[in-house]
Amino acid sequence: MTASFFRSRWVDPPTDLEQLDPALLPDGFRAGGVACGLKGNGKTDLGLVVCDSGQVESAILLTASAAAAAPVRVCRRQLRQGSVRAAIVNSGNANAATGEQGLEDALAMRDSAGLALGLEPEQVAVAETGVIGVPLDMEPVLEAINGLAGSLSADGAVRFSEAIMTTDQWPKQCTVRAGGVTVSAQAKGAGMIEPGFATMLCFVQTDARLEDPERQLRSSVADSFERITVDGQMSTNDTVLLQSSGTSGRGLPGGLLEAVLLQLALEIVADGEGATRVGRIEVDGAADRDEAEKVARRIANSPLVKTALLGRDPNWGRIAQAAGAALAGSDVGELGPEAISAGELAGDGAEAELRLVLERGGGRAHVYFSDLTHEYIRINAEYTT
Amino acid sequence: MTASFFRSRWVDPPTDLEQLDPALLPDGFRAGGVACGLKGNGKTDLGLVVCDSGQVESAILLTASAAAAAPVRVCRRQLRQGSVRAAIVNSGNANAATGEQGLEDALAMRDSAGLALGLEPEQVAVAETGVIGVPLDMEPVLEAINGLAGSLSADGAVRFSEAIMTTDQWPKQCTVRAGGVTVSAQAKGAGMIEPGFATMLCFVQTDARLEDPERQLRSSVADSFERITVDGQMSTNDTVLLQSSGTSGRGLPGGLLEAVLLQLALEIVADGEGATRVGRIEVDGAADRDEAEKVARRIANSPLVKTALLGRDPNWGRIAQAAGAALAGSDVGELGPEAISAGELAGDGAEAELRLVLERGGGRAHVYFSDLTHEYIRINAEYTT
Repeated sequence: MTASFFRSRWVDPPTDLEQLDPALLPDGFRAGGVACGLKGNGKTDLGLVVCDSGQVESAILLTASAAAAAPVRVCRRQLRQGSVRAAIVNSGNANAATGEQGLEDALAMRDSAGLALGLEPEQVAVAETGVIGVPLDMEPVLEAINGLAGSLSADGAVRFSEAIMTTDQWPKQCTVRAGGVTVSAQAKGAGMIEPGFATMLCFVQTDARLEDPERQLRSSVADSFERITVDGQMSTNDTVLLQSSGTSGRGLPGGLLEAVLLQLALEIVADGEGATRVGRIEVDGAADRDEAEKVARRIANSPLVKTALLGRDPNWGRIAQAAGAALAGSDVGELGPEAISAGELAGDGAEAELRLVLERGGGRAHVYFSDLTHEYIRINAEYTT
Repeated sequence: MTASFFRSRWVDPPTDLEQLDPALLPDGFRAGGVACGLKGNGKTDLGLVVCDSGQVESAILLTASAAAAAPVRVCRRQLRQGSVRAAIVNSGNANAATGEQGLEDALAMRDSAGLALGLEPEQVAVAETGVIGVPLDMEPVLEAINGLAGSLSADGAVRFSEAIMTTDQWPKQCTVRAGGVTVSAQAKGAGMIEPGFATMLCFVQTDARLEDPERQLRSSVADSFERITVDGQMSTNDTVLLQSSGTSGRGLPGGLLEAVLLQLALEIVADGEGATRVGRIEVDGAADRDEAEKVARRIANSPLVKTALLGRDPNWGRIAQAAGAALAGSDVGELGPEAISAGELAGDGAEAELRLVLERGGGRAHVYFSDLTHEYIRINAEYTT
């Protein structure tokens, strides 16, 4: 057994959880990845995952960005919600800000994958990540899809995971088993790519039966991917897809999906651009949950707090300042050390837990965030289009 | 004549404007500054400005922070709004997050200055900037106030300006004359100080008669200090005070106060922590002004846009991404080069003008911002409390 996938102290997986070979997919799924040349360095850049069961259940969550990329628009409008059989994904080009041609290209990718798998186009999700504002080079993509569809296998999760990576420094994926069901998941994180956006993609497969995939996915994402920030920048391409074959006949054990998605979310933060440490800020005692969330996000996105996390500076004043700004117009008095726990900023740990207690009500929220480093500046300033 | 104070292309001073010796104050004002030891390096750190006219008119704007510092609380609650005669200001200690003792100290500073000048305490504003969370060393402050009050002079504007600086790399002040009236103004910018907050203070004196000081100040601040961002962090101590002696008998010529405050605001951005360039993003065609402002601020505070400004990268995609995030939940299509002017990011100029045109209505807004640099990280991460 290798080191636990669940390496964050903030993740609490089910006690009977077992880690499987990460290449394995749950019963009823096949996946794979090939290099079609979009990345241009021989790395795999086209991935495909399919559920072979006609009883598939699915849920998909897409970025709320008003300037969403073509694949997101296609999924928003033309997907058979609830029974998505397959996802075709490329890295190296986000197909964002590519206009009408981009939409046609995303549709062509989807249609081609559907044809190769014998599925209706509306059963196939499409996701893309990478450079923006550049038309997708469709010829190699379309040429590769047939071969890719023929190469899918039940142990293709690692190949699929690698095919969706951009500047990720390590793959973010696992296959785990608990309560008689298997869950595999592959995510890619907030890395910039040849001047692009930070995009987060995640694909989850399980043989569990889902009572309400949409609700289950929303709930788990609300506690994981919606709790993280690297630089406060919402992407044009964010996509999370959950699919179940249901072949185990069992429901998802409590906490399993939540633990997998939270660890993946924390991997994305830890691998954020230039990140060296991950912080968790919890705000308690706010007027309500929305207010707690607003304050926590302001703190998590404050460049002063993020540089304090880098500099191991237990500077509670920066947390007070961010909270004061978030609540501008009201009065919370002067927030001092009695209200703010910032000591872990100074510690040696890769994870620092911070806490702010207001006296306004029972609202509580937390956010995970990365530090702001020289490497972030280097990545984002020293690369010129 | 030295180089023009109005060095930004975005500032449009009245055509008959004349720059005077920056030490001079308008008729009816005296000011000065001394070193009382708060900064500890022999630099002046206590300033006082007074209007000798009983006909003084004034307006003050204070930070909206919910965790405002003691001097701001004193000014919010216990100032004779509209007829503030004097301001006592120290640098080196913000007197923020200092609890009840901080309030007592700010009141004592104010009372002492009032006594020395023969004014009611409620006629004296107090402002402070510097380290936070540390009690003010009151003994040297109170000891210095009498001597300071006795040293004030009509050519003390530079001494006052120097006394309010923290990590500013250059003084931000001017004395100008147009339409028969004189305006002097002294600002200090968004610099960190021994782990503190970025605080902006500005004091403006004029011999013009003000029809409606509150309205005039609000309007000019709305087009200057409220249009800037260094790191999106609202301070606990921000204060802008306008005072007029009215002795010229004339009104303020149109555009004079606006030009002075806008140039000062741009100086603050240009001298922002580690800043090397200033950007101006204008958003047009939003649904309304509020929406335009929201989009412009999201762009101006995006670390991706700020590093593109540093890296001279004409990366319109980052502007599209920030706009899409600001308008999350709606749909603006894919924003491309036809909607975004980002070419000046790549130029050699110290100022870069950017533009985004939406097609949602007639709302327009603009924001000035600094780039995000290695020096920002160094200043904020490598200093440990």
